[in-house]
Amino acid sequence: MAPGFPSDAYKSRVEQMQARMAQTGMSALLLTTEADVRYFTGYLTRFWESPTRPWYLVVPASGDPIAVIPSIGAALMQTTWIADIRTWRAPDYGDDGVTLLADTLTEITSKTGKIAVPSGNGTSLRMPLSDWGRLKGLVPDRCFADDQGIMCAQRMVKSEAEIEKIASSCRVASRAFARVPEIARSGTPLSEVFRRFQMLCLEEGADWVPYLAGGAGQGGYADVISPASDTPLASGDVLMLDTGLVCDGYFCDFDRNYSVGPPSRDTRKAHAKLIKATHAAFEIASPGARASDLFQAMDQVVTGGRGGSDAGRLGHGLGMQLTEPPSLISTDDTVLEPGMVLTLEPGIDTGQGRIMVHEENIVIRDTGAEWLSAPSGPDMMELN
Amino acid sequence: MAPGFPSDAYKSRVEQMQARMAQTGMSALLLTTEADVRYFTGYLTRFWESPTRPWYLVVPASGDPIAVIPSIGAALMQTTWIADIRTWRAPDYGDDGVTLLADTLTEITSKTGKIAVPSGNGTSLRMPLSDWGRLKGLVPDRCFADDQGIMCAQRMVKSEAEIEKIASSCRVASRAFARVPEIARSGTPLSEVFRRFQMLCLEEGADWVPYLAGGAGQGGYADVISPASDTPLASGDVLMLDTGLVCDGYFCDFDRNYSVGPPSRDTRKAHAKLIKATHAAFEIASPGARASDLFQAMDQVVTGGRGGSDAGRLGHGLGMQLTEPPSLISTDDTVLEPGMVLTLEPGIDTGQGRIMVHEENIVIRDTGAEWLSAPSGPDMMELN
Repeated sequence: MAPGFPSDAYKSRVEQMQARMAQTGMSALLLTTEADVRYFTGYLTRFWESPTRPWYLVVPASGDPIAVIPSIGAALMQTTWIADIRTWRAPDYGDDGVTLLADTLTEITSKTGKIAVPSGNGTSLRMPLSDWGRLKGLVPDRCFADDQGIMCAQRMVKSEAEIEKIASSCRVASRAFARVPEIARSGTPLSEVFRRFQMLCLEEGADWVPYLAGGAGQGGYADVISPASDTPLASGDVLMLDTGLVCDGYFCDFDRNYSVGPPSRDTRKAHAKLIKATHAAFEIASPGARASDLFQAMDQVVTGGRGGSDAGRLGHGLGMQLTEPPSLISTDDTVLEPGMVLTLEPGIDTGQGRIMVHEENIVIRDTGAEWLSAPSGPDMMELN
Repeated sequence: MAPGFPSDAYKSRVEQMQARMAQTGMSALLLTTEADVRYFTGYLTRFWESPTRPWYLVVPASGDPIAVIPSIGAALMQTTWIADIRTWRAPDYGDDGVTLLADTLTEITSKTGKIAVPSGNGTSLRMPLSDWGRLKGLVPDRCFADDQGIMCAQRMVKSEAEIEKIASSCRVASRAFARVPEIARSGTPLSEVFRRFQMLCLEEGADWVPYLAGGAGQGGYADVISPASDTPLASGDVLMLDTGLVCDGYFCDFDRNYSVGPPSRDTRKAHAKLIKATHAAFEIASPGARASDLFQAMDQVVTGGRGGSDAGRLGHGLGMQLTEPPSLISTDDTVLEPGMVLTLEPGIDTGQGRIMVHEENIVIRDTGAEWLSAPSGPDMMELN
């Protein structure tokens, strides 16, 4: 798989965004997060793990984006299609790129111009709050405004090349999940299962493994976000592993449940119900359906329509991030379009404070949904 | 290693912070990031990889912290010492925890109270900007203010138990680096080296590997933050691997340089100079020295005192995050104290747009510095 995308793909993204900006009267779009910056540039680095330095990308109303970044990133940014790269030597306690950014915004917008910043659900501004205040002071006649979700809306529909990268991650995870019986059996500490599973993901081709959570317990687990304890697996346990691994910067996000020894009748039934719920959403996941419709279809199966659980949602978008809009909740009216990639993630209460959660990844096509993860059947995989 | 710390350790951190808050007239501290929330609670989960949901921790002027979090995190938060856990079912497009947070802040502060928020270098506010605006509107008579760096100052000095966790990560990485000759030789694609090295880190005991960067090239590499290409290693290459792996939520952050085949005279000299620079800083890294002194000591060796490079700094703090304050730059006046953990990270220009960077981890003790990484000697490790 060739890394990133051809320059034309990024240019076309910029043009699409500029059309959205024109419609909403925005003079510039200011981006600060890894995924948003990468979306228009192809700038891929794990260096964002370091919180020290801010990174800025400015998309003007017309013309190419401008990168305003720490000089440590210049060499890598120069390998992308971005030509206008403005750097400062960060960290600079006196002025950590704020004047450079303000000058750039002043240069490319006219007075009273509206500078849009992603501000809604799931976003955050990755820069120091004090610098944000200072920036507003340096461009007093421009107005900073909510981007009205245009960044989120555009990223929600994936190109064929993006879908192929997500599919690639899904294939790697599917192969790793199939090999779990090699590394997990009765007596294996959960922490060892987590460690070995990440090694399987890498061996099968993941570039890295940003996310792994899971749980194990008799007939279910208490939650789905905990790190691993050293408790050994025991017969009757349900083991769940949920991974978000990446290939070329694109995530999968799905899980698998395993029974340690033969599953009890209740466990078998619970798992089969989760698969049934997943298929209920899959069947109606076509262009024109709403995110809320998928929620309702799954909730009908798992709770009889009582309205969900503490997880808050029964699936979500994914792509450059582990989780992206939309959310499969009763109040999300997003109309599905071809190219949207989603997780279907129903959960079920198995009693005594325990749950089971199943998750698959799909892409919306013209005529319906297509699996990206190799879908589980109703029977659970068994571990010795 | 037992996970986390005893409850008393967290309580003592809260008391220390409340003393700082009293000194600066703060009625509450509002925290939104993974490391800040975990510092007072022990709440460890990789779920922060998902950007969808905000998480809040409020430290009052007196009394225990209050967690205001999505219900999906309640089960895990209940396993910590935090008793006051207030949840909402997120995502909620109508009110994603903002009213709950505002009510909490109103309850624990008096009118005209000052609510501190980390706002300086290296921080960011992890919540949607529109919710931030709404929150301020919901508590109009309270004042939100810069925390004046008290959160950063407190986290900068590590407890003995924290140091032991960082040391544990360093030992894992030291063992993995020693095994690189098993996985990398002339002809191995760099991407394969990256993948296999992460597997070594896991095999040696890492919980996960949040960070790996590096490079390879004749006599040096173009930068230190790029992901791996598929280019095979070739004789004469210098291979650098830089990892931040974690054990129980604490990072190491150091690198190693390898010569593919015997190093040239220039490469040998460059590496030896980097080791010399590292030792120059190590020798003076005692309580009372300043961060800027360590910068000067290294810069003197690598540039003759010309003042650094595009990397911007020659080392930094680390712990719960890959990089933390202070920065080893000429303008950082932080006075070193026992318990501070630092990287020493000198870089050198090897010509033709290439560099070499070396990095070690140290802890400041009463009488001087102590290595946490197993320090490299002047001779480079060789790969076949």
